[in-house]
Order: sequence, then C-alpha cells, then structure tokens
Amino acid sequence: MSLAKTLAAPVPPGGTVGILGGGQLGRMLALAAARLGLKTHVFCDNPRSCAFQVCEAHTIGKFEDVDAIGAFATACDVVTFEFENIPATTIAHIAGIVPVNPGADALRITQDRFDEKRFVESCGLKTSRVFDVDSAEGAAAAFAALGGPGVLKTRRMGYDGKGQAKVATPAECVAAFEAFRCAPSILEGFVDFAFEASVVAARAADGSFAAFDPPENTHENHILRRSTVPGRLTPAQSETAKALARKIADALDYVGVLAVELFVLKDGALLVNEIAPRVHNSGHWTIEACAVSQFEQHIRAVCGWPLGSPARHADAVMENILGAEANAWMDHAKRAGALHLYGKGEARRGRKMGHFTTLSPLTKS
Amino acid sequence: MSLAKTLAAPVPPGGTVGILGGGQLGRMLALAAARLGLKTHVFCDNPRSCAFQVCEAHTIGKFEDVDAIGAFATACDVVTFEFENIPATTIAHIAGIVPVNPGADALRITQDRFDEKRFVESCGLKTSRVFDVDSAEGAAAAFAALGGPGVLKTRRMGYDGKGQAKVATPAECVAAFEAFRCAPSILEGFVDFAFEASVVAARAADGSFAAFDPPENTHENHILRRSTVPGRLTPAQSETAKALARKIADALDYVGVLAVELFVLKDGALLVNEIAPRVHNSGHWTIEACAVSQFEQHIRAVCGWPLGSPARHADAVMENILGAEANAWMDHAKRAGALHLYGKGEARRGRKMGHFTTLSPLTKS
Repeated sequence: MSLAKTLAAPVPPGGTVGILGGGQLGRMLALAAARLGLKTHVFCDNPRSCAFQVCEAHTIGKFEDVDAIGAFATACDVVTFEFENIPATTIAHIAGIVPVNPGADALRITQDRFDEKRFVESCGLKTSRVFDVDSAEGAAAAFAALGGPGVLKTRRMGYDGKGQAKVATPAECVAAFEAFRCAPSILEGFVDFAFEASVVAARAADGSFAAFDPPENTHENHILRRSTVPGRLTPAQSETAKALARKIADALDYVGVLAVELFVLKDGALLVNEIAPRVHNSGHWTIEACAVSQFEQHIRAVCGWPLGSPARHADAVMENILGAEANAWMDHAKRAGALHLYGKGEARRGRKMGHFTTLSPLTKS
Repeated sequence: MSLAKTLAAPVPPGGTVGILGGGQLGRMLALAAARLGLKTHVFCDNPRSCAFQVCEAHTIGKFEDVDAIGAFATACDVVTFEFENIPATTIAHIAGIVPVNPGADALRITQDRFDEKRFVESCGLKTSRVFDVDSAEGAAAAFAALGGPGVLKTRRMGYDGKGQAKVATPAECVAAFEAFRCAPSILEGFVDFAFEASVVAARAADGSFAAFDPPENTHENHILRRSTVPGRLTPAQSETAKALARKIADALDYVGVLAVELFVLKDGALLVNEIAPRVHNSGHWTIEACAVSQFEQHIRAVCGWPLGSPARHADAVMENILGAEANAWMDHAKRAGALHLYGKGEARRGRKMGHFTTLSPLTKS
C-alpha cells in the first residue's frame, strides 16, 4: 500500500468527501458531513440510492467501472465507504488518486470472514472456532473437526444473515456448501452466549482513539432489532470491549469508525464475532445521545479533523424500523423520541427503512 | 386567502417539501426533512446558496419570476420559507398551486414592522412605543411625539440591524429617514430592558401548539451572539412567554415554527420586540437538546405531521460563529460540543457562518 495517497492536511470546510455506497449509512454520513460544512459526493450503482437525496453531487456507476471511479475520485478531497463489499482493485485505484480512509488493508481483512478471524486471533483476542471450507470434502472434514452443529458462512459478501446456513450433520454441511455454489466458506461453531454487544469506536491517523459506550444488541432473523445503552455489560466489560477495539484498530492502522460485534459469554468473557470497517447500525443512538455522532466521528477521522468526545449525555434505546413497519410512519411520528426514515422507496421484507431512538436520563457513563 | 390550497392529508415520507430561500435556515430545514425521509427542493436567487448542497433538487431563480416559481411549486407537495422578505405576490401565486405554510397572512403582517406592532397590541400584548414615519415632516413629528431619543427603522426588509439608525435629535431623525431613501419607517422608543429573550414555538393546522423553553439571548452589533437555556427567565416568565407566543400563533392561524423576540423589563414584564414567521437563530440549540429540533418541528407542522415534544433533555448554550471566526474552524472542532458550519464560501464580516452548542446536565425544565 506504499502507493496509497495520504492526507497532507485536514480537509477544510467546503472540501468534498467522497462516499462509496448510497444506502442509509452513506446518507447519514452525508448529513453529518454537511453539519461540518463539508460537501459530499456519493458514488453508487443504484440509481435510486437514498443518499443521493442529501449530497451535493452523485455518480451512478458500477464499482468496477475504472473511468467512472477515477472521475469520482478526482472530484473528491478524500474518499470513504459505507459498506465493506467494495472490490479491492477499486479501492487501490482510488487510493492512487486521492486518500482513502479507512485503508485497503482494513477492507481486505474484513472482507473475508476467515482472514478476519485469523486476524482477531493474531491480536490475542478470542473469537469463535472456525474451519476453512473450500471443497465438498472439506465441508465434511470441517464438520468432523468441529465435532457438532455449526453455521456455514461464505467467506465473502455476507450481511444480515445472507450467505449463512445452520448445519446439523456432515451431509447438511456439504449441501449448504453446494447451495453457496461452492463459494469459499467457513464452518463456525455455535457460541453459547449470554447476550450480544458491540463497540463502535474511532481511530484517527495520529493514533488517537475514542470509543462510544458499548450497547447491548438484540437481533431478530439475523437483523439488528434493538441497541440499548447501557445494556447488561458491566463497567469492566465495557472497558474491556473498548480496549479490544483499540487493539484491533491499532493493528489495522485504522482511520475512521469501526464496529466490533461481540458475544458476551455466560462466564463474562468477550468473544469477537465480526469487525465492520465502517459506521454501524448499533451506533445510530449516538446521533441523539452524544454531541458528536458516529457519523460525524467517522467524517472527522477520515478528513483528518480531531476526534470528538464519545461521551454520551443520556441513556438510549435504538430500534430499527424494518420493511413494512415503515408504513406505520404516522404512529412512529406520534411517539416521544427521535424518528429517522431513510427515504427508501420500497419497504421490502427485512429492509432497514428507518430507526427510532428514545432517550432517558443518564444512569451510568 | 380563500383561494389558498391547504393540505388534504399529511405529506408522506418520500414527498417533497419546497423551501424558499437557500441560507443556513433552509439548509438546516432540509437536513431535518431528510431525517424524516422527506425530499426537499430549495428555491433561491443565489446560485451559491448553501442549502443547495443538501437538498434533492434546487432551482436558481428570482422570487419574482412567475414561471420559475410556478414550476417549483408544481414539483412540491408543500412549500415553506426560511426568511420573511418574500414578495406577497409570490406566496399568493404558489398558494394557488400547492399549500404554503405558514400562510400569507402571517407573512404579510410580519413583513411590516408597523403592522406587526399594531397586530401585537391587538393581541393584548405589550410592545415598544412606535410612531409611523412616511415623510421628513413625519420624522420630525414622530420624534416630538416620542419625546426623546429612539431608533428609526424601515418598516420592511430589515434584519440583523440593517435598516436601523439610532437618533438623538429631530434633525438626526429626519436625516436617517432620508438616508433610508424615505422608505416608510417607524420611530421606536428605547426600551430599558434587563435582558433579551425569545420563545420559539410551533403551531399545527389543528391548533395544537408546542413551545420550546425560552432562551436568554445576547446580541452584539445587533447580531445574536449567544442563546442560553435556561437563562435568567423565571419559570413564571417562561410560562408567560409561551402563552403569549400561543396567543400570537392562534391569532395568525399559524402553521409552522415562529419565534417571538422579547425584552424582559426590569420589573419582570415581557415586551414583544419582533415576530419571525420562521425557524430562528435563537432556537438552534434545540438540535442537540431536544429529541425534535425546531427545524424538524417546522417540517412536521408544515407537512401536517404531529408536533414532537418540545421537552429538552439538557441545558444548552448556543454561540454563533460569525464572519472570520469561522477561519478558526480547527479550534472549534477541538472544543467539546456540537459544531455546525453552514458551507458558506465567503466569511464576510458579521455573516453567520456556523454555530456551536454546548450541553450540560438538565437543571430545570
């Protein structure tokens, strides 16, 4: 990555932040950038990207289109992304023109579930037991090695439960692998956790670091339903979570916001589930509960600005509004709290259409 | 105004709110609308309007251009405005095509300082002593009637101290009137106030009403420097302020957010200084300190949505960043609190370039 551009100076107000991806995370990044007087240029292949509604400029193009990507990069002072499934070659191309934060290394490692798990272990952190699967024979062998039921996951391109299958027998494991069109996969052991949590944190290019308080997360059908802060984590667990996020961010020489999804085990230990090299659904509550949200924090980090304080001034519960639940927008509008709708057209099943955050007085920080 | 369109149903998410005026208030209205999944279309005569950076569509045109205004109105589900100096004929034209909130009556009355003062008195509320001035002889006569020094102000188009002159003699009063090119004016008596305050409140079409806690305001060179909530108003004064805002809003059959600027006299009485038929600089602290900001509240009201709670969850101090102060953006970015920069190019003297809000734990509500 020695050819990658880095920021010579902070991007000043009036500068342009390029955002790869035009979904709700890109949209909220654009809104946060606007608050700081920065312009945004969103690049996405979907002509109806909801982030296009709130940015100064947008480009509709394929992430593999070298010419379109090049023109986009040239129009920006710095480029970031809202999702991790961007071709590494695209990032490398942009990075030769304009700085990209977070960098290609973070993206490469977190794009592959197996590499990510090995990276987590290399940091001295615990994660689930996983076995590499790249053939039907390997699928059966992995099941035997795991010694019981697990989850087969494609190494790449999975999110919100997509590219995942529970397998209870060696035959199911082979069948799932074939259903994934023999895409390189991992077999992961079940984790008998007490609850799920995450830590959303930022690291700046100078190594400074700021972690928001880790919420407890509840999932339904593999999709985040609710984040609660403070949740059931003890103060010590919260500190441990922040420390492990810092270890990961430092090891990646990370610039920007990242999220580390955690399993909190019944014995109190924390196990790293996934790393998301971007702003994260479990950090949406920071918009209301902190002076500087995860979105602004990311913009600050990628633009070379000082990180804001991650302190929260309230307790918060964030609930996602999924699919057809968005049709009841008038009911949501009547509730006491902060309603966010993402400007998406179709309320497809399970689609993240908005979220709702309720604040209550600070109980611990 | 019987020909004016009114909303048959609330504007749903995905609908388009038209905003006349592309300054920082329009920009923050657009950002608030985006949070609710609404699109915005900003109309302004300045091709470098900072609100253009964050809206889905914009039109550069003169407010008097009937064709451009008509095309704009046709593209919107409802239209509102960020400043009061819009020609009444423009509003009437739009209102024949699409609903305009707040309505033409509120705009007409608040566009004229003399009409506004008479309206305030007709509501049974106190305001400063004013005399109508429409000739040089009238200027001298008004000075005599006032019986001492005062401020000559043009009836129309003034803001931030523009179109105002202190006058200490009849000759100065005549000279000021002539310096205003004999524009219809008022001579206003000085008010010996203890401090300044304001109340920012919303009224919906169904008559429901919600007032934010009134801040104490500090001005420098006729420009707002700081709003502090809670300020020096007693709880009883705060309630009185909210009640008078409701009286004004009801009398105007108002739909949207309005601000009433107040003088708090040394004997504790409240005197109405000005009415702004729009979101207001002294309400910017609501972005952080309330679940629903003044900007979202305005969008809710004009779109026929239920008003949000005006309760605040923190104390707040909002300070404007004026002119060249914006050049120190890096220093502002290092402060603990919420930085807002408006994306304006030139940092002209006294120009509102941004603001900074500091929160602290709630002390009274």
